[in-house]
Amino acid sequence: VQIEIINTGTELLLGCILNTHQQWLCRKLSDLGYLIARQVTVPDTGPAIQEAVREALERADLILVTGGLGPTSDDRTRDFIATLLGRKLVHNQTVMDDINGFFARRHRATPAHTEVQALVPEGALVLRNRCGTAPGLAITIDAGKFKPGESWLIMLPGPPNELHPMFDEQVAPLLKSHLPLREPFLSLTLNTTGLGESVVENKIASPLKTLVDAGLEIGYCARPSEVDVRLSARGAHAKQLISQAEQIVRGLVGEYIFGASNQELPSVIIGLLARKHKTLAVAESCTGGNLAHRLTNVPGASAVFLGGWITYQNAAKEKFLGVQAKTLAEHGAVSEPTAREMALGARTRMCADYALSITGIAGPGGGSGAKPVGTVFIGLATPDRVDVVQRFNPLDRETFKYVTTQQALELLRRELLG
Amino acid sequence: VQIEIINTGTELLLGCILNTHQQWLCRKLSDLGYLIARQVTVPDTGPAIQEAVREALERADLILVTGGLGPTSDDRTRDFIATLLGRKLVHNQTVMDDINGFFARRHRATPAHTEVQALVPEGALVLRNRCGTAPGLAITIDAGKFKPGESWLIMLPGPPNELHPMFDEQVAPLLKSHLPLREPFLSLTLNTTGLGESVVENKIASPLKTLVDAGLEIGYCARPSEVDVRLSARGAHAKQLISQAEQIVRGLVGEYIFGASNQELPSVIIGLLARKHKTLAVAESCTGGNLAHRLTNVPGASAVFLGGWITYQNAAKEKFLGVQAKTLAEHGAVSEPTAREMALGARTRMCADYALSITGIAGPGGGSGAKPVGTVFIGLATPDRVDVVQRFNPLDRETFKYVTTQQALELLRRELLG
Repeated sequence: VQIEIINTGTELLLGCILNTHQQWLCRKLSDLGYLIARQVTVPDTGPAIQEAVREALERADLILVTGGLGPTSDDRTRDFIATLLGRKLVHNQTVMDDINGFFARRHRATPAHTEVQALVPEGALVLRNRCGTAPGLAITIDAGKFKPGESWLIMLPGPPNELHPMFDEQVAPLLKSHLPLREPFLSLTLNTTGLGESVVENKIASPLKTLVDAGLEIGYCARPSEVDVRLSARGAHAKQLISQAEQIVRGLVGEYIFGASNQELPSVIIGLLARKHKTLAVAESCTGGNLAHRLTNVPGASAVFLGGWITYQNAAKEKFLGVQAKTLAEHGAVSEPTAREMALGARTRMCADYALSITGIAGPGGGSGAKPVGTVFIGLATPDRVDVVQRFNPLDRETFKYVTTQQALELLRRELLG
Repeated sequence: VQIEIINTGTELLLGCILNTHQQWLCRKLSDLGYLIARQVTVPDTGPAIQEAVREALERADLILVTGGLGPTSDDRTRDFIATLLGRKLVHNQTVMDDINGFFARRHRATPAHTEVQALVPEGALVLRNRCGTAPGLAITIDAGKFKPGESWLIMLPGPPNELHPMFDEQVAPLLKSHLPLREPFLSLTLNTTGLGESVVENKIASPLKTLVDAGLEIGYCARPSEVDVRLSARGAHAKQLISQAEQIVRGLVGEYIFGASNQELPSVIIGLLARKHKTLAVAESCTGGNLAHRLTNVPGASAVFLGGWITYQNAAKEKFLGVQAKTLAEHGAVSEPTAREMALGARTRMCADYALSITGIAGPGGGSGAKPVGTVFIGLATPDRVDVVQRFNPLDRETFKYVTTQQALELLRRELLG
């Protein structure tokens, strides 16, 4: 099944907006076993949209088009594609009822200009929108019109909160029934932290060689402080191949695997704390709140995360966390003893089971010969001791903050598992 | 000048990685006055890359190709394009010296497999890479080979920290000298917060009509809690048109304009505090550290941002910020009086000039009939009083946190200007 994605929107090509649809749709489709051959972004104009769709129709079995289904004057994807395909637009009462219901639930009258969204190309399947007003539209294109076989064109609304549920609830089932894979497909992604991409590859590639010869595919995806290993296979033996490969990978790098299927480390931590009925506090200097921010992005974090301090200044470290003036004077704010006292103070004062502390130099300024930019100490206070590790993350400021919080969370994860 | 962007990388089409090059390059190019006609992502394979490049060469005057210039086995963009264009790859000693220097500065021997990066297509201009090992390559393609006029193809390395300086320092000047705009171009983006897109448009569109008739272009870009107004013009009168338009827009919605040219609100706040020699502390509940995180993303924040508290629990609000038990019992944690006492406590205890407090319900759980999910109170303590505003942000958790911190920062911005 040859798949292409077309994102429409002049704002994308002006750089106003980051295109997150590409990654989201590609990940969803590849998890289902479909490969995407090409992704294209074009402006909102008729010739640009029609040319991109016509070219894709000559190659692809499925074309996903996003954006331009709204009620405003630059939302014309529906018209342009109907014209290209020679389909009339007809008023669809089910869609109109959905639109009226959407506004009624918000105690508002249906604005007149939204009625254009109830126009549907002849013969199109309507994908109802439970989070917005523009329906998705799925059209089958007869074999021979553009390419030898039949193809599907599916238009999806641009807002992510409308597109995501529509894809999961309606497009994915439609693919399974109308564009099924020739063979069963399975994939498993294992998320690791603490090893570089080449190290992970060196450890697992040879031991997996026999399985690869039998049809296993391995993919590596490296991001700051994370390497994802994607195992996939097709055919009758897919399940067996993946399960054997998982066992081998876990045997070789198991301690670095913090999750599967693109879990994020903060949600793994919140889950572990909840399961053990334990609580956490944090004391951050150079990460400036990012550790707390990432933890509180997880719904339900408040059950186990009690809170924390951002103590940028020495005075605050003393006054609020009980770091001793002597420690700061003798060792400096960026030091093992300061990290230790910060963690201890945070744990005691917040009455938490665990506390993480971070003190370091994020840069770009503030470094010295002995403590260059990127130097950081991470403390973990547990019910019976305090551990401190030193790390060196000479990265740009935002990546430094992210990688450092990742290292702190990993320190806690290993403690909670150990 | 017709421009197309080709991003290469199988990992992009598997959804492993978010494509940030599109937005970054599009914004840079549109700020220089160039419009991008199309962006394409293709996998790392020879046929896919060559087909995309061949198609683009039939249309575009400039093609920017990103990725696939590294030293590993799947980095083959250079070869595939050289083959397509019928150019031999020749060893370039300047590039090899740069690569050797890169590793020497890191006290490492040059790995043998990096030598492939010193291969340069015959006649290509080398764009030296001061942040990595793969050089950029700019090639002119003779008129008539693919399309009537001459065109340029520029290959750029994938890592953003290499691509960004190479574009700014070498590609932008190359465009100005070799692919100049026919007319002078100017643009100005004004960043607003606090008004919806249609409200901004309703206020300024009619008053700008005369200037639009004279050649002014207006673009709107809406993001959560921000609407950017982009004013641009070409030709001899561009400067005058933009300056008149700016005056009109500032006259109508000036109080909502917090910056220009895509400044971010936290960096505006840090700048205002620094200029006034004032300091800030924060006390966050439902935003869980995001306010502090955003402020500390700004280099130099430590000069004016003293620190803060994340007080998820009532006990922490009492103990660390001095919120009275009576206040919490009578009004609840999400209330005007609690926000007031949090801001006051944070300002006093941190000895800061200003303090911001946030208490609310981020959701998805925790709402009630009287205080539904999205309810939030924001406090601002100044040297002589405490203001509290109530907002309602019924959004997903992460957007709630972002929009709420934006509202808090805007409250402080108006105080600092007033």
